[in-house]
Amino acid sequence: MIFKRITNLLVSILLCVPLFSQAPANWKQDGEWKRAPTNIRTGEYPKIADDGRLAFQYRAPNAKTVQLQIAGKKYDLDPGEGGLWSTIIPYPGPGMQFYAYIVDGITVNDPSSEFFFNGSWRSAVEVPSPGEDFYLMKQVPHGQVREFWFFSTITQTYRLMYIYVPAEYETNTTARYPVLYLQHGGGENETSWIRAGRANIILDNLIAEKKAKPMIIVVNSGFAFKPDESMDSGIEFLPGSSFEQMLLKDVIPTVDKNFRTIPDREHRALAGLSMGSLQTLQIGLTNLNMFAWLGVFSRPPGEFDTVNGFNGVLSNPALVNSSLRLFWWGAGTTEVSIYNKSREILQGFKENGINHEFYESPGTAHEWQTWRRCLNQFAQKLF
Amino acid sequence: MIFKRITNLLVSILLCVPLFSQAPANWKQDGEWKRAPTNIRTGEYPKIADDGRLAFQYRAPNAKTVQLQIAGKKYDLDPGEGGLWSTIIPYPGPGMQFYAYIVDGITVNDPSSEFFFNGSWRSAVEVPSPGEDFYLMKQVPHGQVREFWFFSTITQTYRLMYIYVPAEYETNTTARYPVLYLQHGGGENETSWIRAGRANIILDNLIAEKKAKPMIIVVNSGFAFKPDESMDSGIEFLPGSSFEQMLLKDVIPTVDKNFRTIPDREHRALAGLSMGSLQTLQIGLTNLNMFAWLGVFSRPPGEFDTVNGFNGVLSNPALVNSSLRLFWWGAGTTEVSIYNKSREILQGFKENGINHEFYESPGTAHEWQTWRRCLNQFAQKLF
Repeated sequence: MIFKRITNLLVSILLCVPLFSQAPANWKQDGEWKRAPTNIRTGEYPKIADDGRLAFQYRAPNAKTVQLQIAGKKYDLDPGEGGLWSTIIPYPGPGMQFYAYIVDGITVNDPSSEFFFNGSWRSAVEVPSPGEDFYLMKQVPHGQVREFWFFSTITQTYRLMYIYVPAEYETNTTARYPVLYLQHGGGENETSWIRAGRANIILDNLIAEKKAKPMIIVVNSGFAFKPDESMDSGIEFLPGSSFEQMLLKDVIPTVDKNFRTIPDREHRALAGLSMGSLQTLQIGLTNLNMFAWLGVFSRPPGEFDTVNGFNGVLSNPALVNSSLRLFWWGAGTTEVSIYNKSREILQGFKENGINHEFYESPGTAHEWQTWRRCLNQFAQKLF
Repeated sequence: MIFKRITNLLVSILLCVPLFSQAPANWKQDGEWKRAPTNIRTGEYPKIADDGRLAFQYRAPNAKTVQLQIAGKKYDLDPGEGGLWSTIIPYPGPGMQFYAYIVDGITVNDPSSEFFFNGSWRSAVEVPSPGEDFYLMKQVPHGQVREFWFFSTITQTYRLMYIYVPAEYETNTTARYPVLYLQHGGGENETSWIRAGRANIILDNLIAEKKAKPMIIVVNSGFAFKPDESMDSGIEFLPGSSFEQMLLKDVIPTVDKNFRTIPDREHRALAGLSMGSLQTLQIGLTNLNMFAWLGVFSRPPGEFDTVNGFNGVLSNPALVNSSLRLFWWGAGTTEVSIYNKSREILQGFKENGINHEFYESPGTAHEWQTWRRCLNQFAQKLF
């Protein structure tokens, strides 16, 4: 590797390529680079430097151009021996960053990467966040994530939910636990809160540090349609949606029957990100008999009807305040329209006397680092 | 959809394109085509006809050529409106078939597909197998697959294992269960026996029909390396491999501690496919005090030392026969060199008086349908 880099460096000099062009000069620092934790077992790249730069490499012997697409930017890769294209990019921001290569104009996943769902299965790289380790695997007791198949009477299909139980669930065999129902956004699926959101790791760490109560987390797909219903997106968060019916009639009873839950509203929370936050507001506010804790992460910046929406419940602050033990909102400071709209809504709440809390995730956008932080903050306040 | 097909048909006629050219003529049969069960929620293609043909469609507006690669063959796609390329192919064989598109010479995954591990994460389509439903989801009680993190003292890393518990595990809270340790091949990972092999569904069905005893199945990555050890493939099945050490010192004690197992050799089986079959033979035959049931699926056709191999245990048929309750082999009839070598080895066993059973999977190769059938047959004989 080092010899190749020296060769590249000599070639750069001979060809009068600027010495400080992106790849060759930086490549000298091989010793500091570590494989990204999101690589598959055999995946050497991406690599991460101590200073947060990322190195990418992609094999495309016959390509004329290869670009990297990450965090809203594009970078050209430099060709190298054996059809290996490479580049080094500056720190793209913390947390999980989706990326793709564009090979002669065709967008491809990186076969070196584990895949995470974002519209389709995509490559992503876990970028360190200095000073943050709440979502990293630590030497603490670990809960189980259980794949649970159930038949939905609403959709008339078998569906898979992921259920986190805390580490002590298996040994405290008579204890019962509160439940957080946690929903994904429009681009994600039922795997996302575990795979990308690392909800289980976040809770393992919080529970080990006694910052959160041991709880069960239930993750479902937010998309549910009856057999005769259009599968068009956009109806999942409307009043009385099939998702709402399924959650109330199938999911909660199934979880309460098959897990040692505390099956009352005081021990049941509902939260979601983006589309999931719309579902949380719609279902939570119109079923206050079911949920006492609501978490609204990165609510999309559409209209918010405080008067007639949600069966008019928001026009009755006393009811909301006496029903909800926590009405928690969160957004990233750089998802600007979402952040601004959330603040506008919450200002309205303040004026109307609706109790709430707001968390700002510094410097993050509509992305997993925002939602990991939201869960980390929200879970500490629950139950 | 139908209007577009009719339009295409008219265009075919006007342009004197042969009516029975691959795509347009066949497209008329829209009513019979169903979305493949391996598609993501929003994935319309591939589609499957009642007669087993598959329809593929891929959007590539700027491409000059698009091909489909599946089951060892390549097919040209025909360009269509809006950059939609499509083709219909004949029945490619039963079970899960990996595929990719080749767009202007560049191999890409299909964003419409769920992904399964095969060297990297790849698209695959589940093709029906007439008369076989043992691995399909049925209205029977379903066990849980549990993601279990443990710290390996051998690799000095956290590792994820997938543990299937039968449906009754949660309600029969004092019952204890036998355990099958089930390993993947060189191209797979710890997700494969569940995602592609459908081991949990197969066992759910067998247990519901009382064809198999309720059992726990433990699936681990077959790749394990010490911190100072090369991660080169090919050492995982050598005598005393780090994988063997990890299985014996970390995995089995961890499972016996955290699950209600029957922790003795009479209730412990080891099986694996391909590379996993080499691990099964090496670890099983040299640790007869640990396992009484061995399953060898699609053993690669390398040398087999019946005299000195496995600590010479095969030269003592009486020991093998008295130790193993079952020494079960399986192979697909069209993975020819593997099938022939297995028969050759088992002929040697017969001559040496080593008890064994052999199952032939008709018409399948080195692929998941072979291994699903192997598990289905093997599990019925266990415990």
